[in-house]
Amino acid sequence: MSDDFEARLRDSALDSVPPGMARAVTHVLDAGGKRMRPGLVFRFAALCGAGGARVMEYALAVEMLHAATLVHDDIIDAAETRRGVATVHAAFGTDVALLVGDLLVARCGVHSAATGWAGAAGELFGALSAMVGGELAQRERRFDLTQGVDDYLETVRRKTSTLLQAACAGACMVALDAAADSPLPAQARQYGDHLGRAFQVIDDVLDYSASSGTIGKPVGNDLREGTVTLPLILALEQDPGLAADVERVRAGAAGEIDSVLERVRATGALERCVEVAEEEARRAAAALAHFPDRPERHELEQFALSLPHRSA
Amino acid sequence: MSDDFEARLRDSALDSVPPGMARAVTHVLDAGGKRMRPGLVFRFAALCGAGGARVMEYALAVEMLHAATLVHDDIIDAAETRRGVATVHAAFGTDVALLVGDLLVARCGVHSAATGWAGAAGELFGALSAMVGGELAQRERRFDLTQGVDDYLETVRRKTSTLLQAACAGACMVALDAAADSPLPAQARQYGDHLGRAFQVIDDVLDYSASSGTIGKPVGNDLREGTVTLPLILALEQDPGLAADVERVRAGAAGEIDSVLERVRATGALERCVEVAEEEARRAAAALAHFPDRPERHELEQFALSLPHRSA
Repeated sequence: MSDDFEARLRDSALDSVPPGMARAVTHVLDAGGKRMRPGLVFRFAALCGAGGARVMEYALAVEMLHAATLVHDDIIDAAETRRGVATVHAAFGTDVALLVGDLLVARCGVHSAATGWAGAAGELFGALSAMVGGELAQRERRFDLTQGVDDYLETVRRKTSTLLQAACAGACMVALDAAADSPLPAQARQYGDHLGRAFQVIDDVLDYSASSGTIGKPVGNDLREGTVTLPLILALEQDPGLAADVERVRAGAAGEIDSVLERVRATGALERCVEVAEEEARRAAAALAHFPDRPERHELEQFALSLPHRSA
Repeated sequence: MSDDFEARLRDSALDSVPPGMARAVTHVLDAGGKRMRPGLVFRFAALCGAGGARVMEYALAVEMLHAATLVHDDIIDAAETRRGVATVHAAFGTDVALLVGDLLVARCGVHSAATGWAGAAGELFGALSAMVGGELAQRERRFDLTQGVDDYLETVRRKTSTLLQAACAGACMVALDAAADSPLPAQARQYGDHLGRAFQVIDDVLDYSASSGTIGKPVGNDLREGTVTLPLILALEQDPGLAADVERVRAGAAGEIDSVLERVRATGALERCVEVAEEEARRAAAALAHFPDRPERHELEQFALSLPHRSA
């Protein structure tokens, strides 16, 4: 991402913040991240023939919202580290983290407005609404092993895809000045949907396969929290006896976690998850067929196709 | 407020929420409140000659944002009750309260967009940005007795007035279809500014004067938290020896709180605060001079003038 984007992001986040609290606010921005969402915004806007100040505003809005959800998620997950760095609540306390998340959401709204397109707030806060609804639904179904692939995909749609769809389709809308007759925003939304699935499936695989050093947070976290993801769903299909082991984890036997991770891996579920992600990545790339044949399109295709093989 | 508004408010808040979590979401809406902010929106819109669906959307957006800030504030203040009812975090836990607040913020953004005016999100999320910045600044200055009247008024502007200003001025903008040449939005903003001061000064007086039964929460809360408000600032001017008592509260002597409250009252500071609120209320009413001479204008005038004498 451009230096200009990074500078604008920090300046905006600090707009109303007293100096003594600045570190708490920039902490989550400094912790890095791949700036995947603004990258999508700039590329889709470029493919729709426009760049400029309004696209920058939309990219800032998207990243602010993403950062806000990370800060609040880490409170809920009681996560101590993210990408190997202390989370905001671990470093500055829960109250400050709550406020920092709210501030970043506020900045999202301000930048949405600055696009001059009322629908920008609709895209992004519609996504937030779906994300929180998805999180609440997931909390209701902790350790519910009756959940199937369809339940999982619906959760992924709400928790991951909606914001990516908003990034991709909203960028087209901003660049096209909300032209109602272009088919491109709907195609960008398709890309975001499949990209979200490919991304999230691999995220969930890494929680079963990675070492904590690679992903910068403990593995086995989903299992510990009772979050039922695709690796577990597919493993249970092969090895129904796993359910009894998961019950023991639920009952508090933290020592069981490593053996459940191992038993899931032994079913071949992780390899099948990667195949699912590959199929979703191909569909994402295919959704770009009607976009102009420009470098940004190929970057978006390659980005989608690379996701199933990421290791962090 | 109309039954239609109440029904829309609940339906919208529950839009993405699983049935088992519905009670947590409606809890804060059911806890009542005076619907002051939507009341301002509908009246200012009427004075600007328009009602209709877009004004309803703006009123919903404003109340969603207000409700969200209450839910998150109660987490930070560790408040067990509000208006005599258990807070969301007391009833459903901190994690759920965090998510409910985020959901209500999201609904604010969705309704902002539905006004069709991009500036709606700018008004409301600009206010949220100021509110969080004000809260962070206040946290930095807990028990800082060097704060004067100007510091206090700046905090009130950020924490209370900005949202009232957004409600009043934004309603005019929506009703006038964002007409840039009307002087009315700026005058509505003035009203909101003075109304916010009158409202907040009395809120702060009640924390020193009310019984907990009247305001539905414990008195002395600001003092306990080290939040320096106008009653204490004015009392310290009359009775500098109070500072030592406040220091003992800071050091953890909770038993000192009642005697500090009594000593503040003995200075006459509360009566002087009411005079400040009366002056602000008069200025709020005066700001309406150029609005049409219609019943809504008189209701807004009377509402402002009644604030200094509210007891809850």
